[in-house]
Amino acid sequence: MTPFKFDANGLIAAIIQDADSGEVLMLAYMDKTALERTIREKHTVFYSRSRQQYWVKGETSGHTQDVIQVLTDCDQDTVLIKVHQKGGACHLGYRTCFVHELNEQGDIGRITQEKLFDPDKVYKK
Amino acid sequence: MTPFKFDANGLIAAIIQDADSGEVLMLAYMDKTALERTIREKHTVFYSRSRQQYWVKGETSGHTQDVIQVLTDCDQDTVLIKVHQKGGACHLGYRTCFVHELNEQGDIGRITQEKLFDPDKVYKK
Repeated sequence: MTPFKFDANGLIAAIIQDADSGEVLMLAYMDKTALERTIREKHTVFYSRSRQQYWVKGETSGHTQDVIQVLTDCDQDTVLIKVHQKGGACHLGYRTCFVHELNEQGDIGRITQEKLFDPDKVYKK
Repeated sequence: MTPFKFDANGLIAAIIQDADSGEVLMLAYMDKTALERTIREKHTVFYSRSRQQYWVKGETSGHTQDVIQVLTDCDQDTVLIKVHQKGGACHLGYRTCFVHELNEQGDIGRITQEKLFDPDKVYKK
């Protein structure tokens, strides 16, 4: 594997983009193993900094991300992964995680999307 | 300003996307001041981790990014900034920084873009 520039915690940022619509769905982090698994298993696998564990996106919700293309930048410290997203990427029920528009004061303004699903039903408590 | 979740170094990741084509142009980092300046000045201002200084994107090259919309995610630890990109975002001369496709072994494979400009001419030595 290409020697990526993992940060002090062994992670790189992974931008997840809808391969068809071009929507940016989310950003999460991968270590070497998560990136290798993502490429090999052809679905996204992240490393959670807060929970300190791997998670296969969609494992609970069914909203998996099938990998279409993996790109990297000239610094090799970020990857851009184009996917086919099932359902919504956001655990709050939206298609993408970038739901909130900032206003000119930098405060959260309007919500830019309609909810696709009810998270209480999808992520059963 | 909304209380963003800046990391231990006081930074958040900023994904820069072409407002028209949907191309993901680059990822860079902002501290509170850089984000405030980006919103107020309506062009992107980043904080360079390696050089420990602010940089206005395009200051040298003229390839500025005019801010069209700023979005944030539910965690408030990432921003997605939609811009009108003049010229190319990548200092190597490409339209976007995500030029290299990874192959199935995770190694850098083909280059996915044509060069837009000659960096030696734009970034005069």
